[in-house]
Amino acid sequence: MTKLSLLLTSVVLLNAGLSHAGPIEDQIKYRQSAYSFIGWNTNKIKAQLDKPETFSKEEVIAAANAIAAAANSGLGALYGSGTDQGEGWRKTRLKSEFFQKPDEAKKLATTFNLEANEFAKVAETGDPVQIKVKFGKLTQSCKACHDSFREKDPK
Amino acid sequence: MTKLSLLLTSVVLLNAGLSHAGPIEDQIKYRQSAYSFIGWNTNKIKAQLDKPETFSKEEVIAAANAIAAAANSGLGALYGSGTDQGEGWRKTRLKSEFFQKPDEAKKLATTFNLEANEFAKVAETGDPVQIKVKFGKLTQSCKACHDSFREKDPK
Repeated sequence: MTKLSLLLTSVVLLNAGLSHAGPIEDQIKYRQSAYSFIGWNTNKIKAQLDKPETFSKEEVIAAANAIAAAANSGLGALYGSGTDQGEGWRKTRLKSEFFQKPDEAKKLATTFNLEANEFAKVAETGDPVQIKVKFGKLTQSCKACHDSFREKDPK
Repeated sequence: MTKLSLLLTSVVLLNAGLSHAGPIEDQIKYRQSAYSFIGWNTNKIKAQLDKPETFSKEEVIAAANAIAAAANSGLGALYGSGTDQGEGWRKTRLKSEFFQKPDEAKKLATTFNLEANEFAKVAETGDPVQIKVKFGKLTQSCKACHDSFREKDPK
């Protein structure tokens, strides 16, 4: 998939919106599940980069593909109106600013999507040095969104 | 990736075991997140197959890739000893039989992995008829494991 077609697909999916959204509690629960799943895979990669003797190319590729596939799965559909309030697995931490700053939200989501897909490509090289650099960019894109739109614990 | 190399990779990852497992509560939480994420993607595909006028090839491919990447992500590492008791997002429903019948567990996990990867390939065709048949096999592999190793709600 070219970068342009990926970008177009991700924008289509980000805008897919509410067709499969379901009740607010479900959207929040699935959202928390998706990001928790992404977090698990991110943690696995971080652990391996922190301890090079544990580095496994296959495991890093699998984790990178999981993150990219989750980023490509249309998570935008889980941000329906009203989902800044309510409980999924637990109370949501999504700030109301998310809905007040749609351009910033879309920009951050698009950056995360691109970084996740580029990281999956770099993971295939199996080169820890390149992987570490790209992983830094990926986690920076996570943090940028958390800083803008996620409440700090505890809420 | 050939079917053999996929199988080998999945067995390696299934056996990756406890190196990144972490505390029991984390394993259960990540497990619940992963299967909830898979469930969300499965529901999206089902909804589109049930209402052909909503069918979107791109969305089905994205959901299928998400399920396959999750199946390939080394979920076996989240089934550490003792994780048939405890709470993640909520109390686990994993039956103790899972640990008493490791051959059956491995067989069911391997079948799910293969069906998820084959489904992702068929999704690329965009043909609802083929997709529906393969989707039935995939969800059957989910159900087989639930029937053997997951407690029914409510526990």
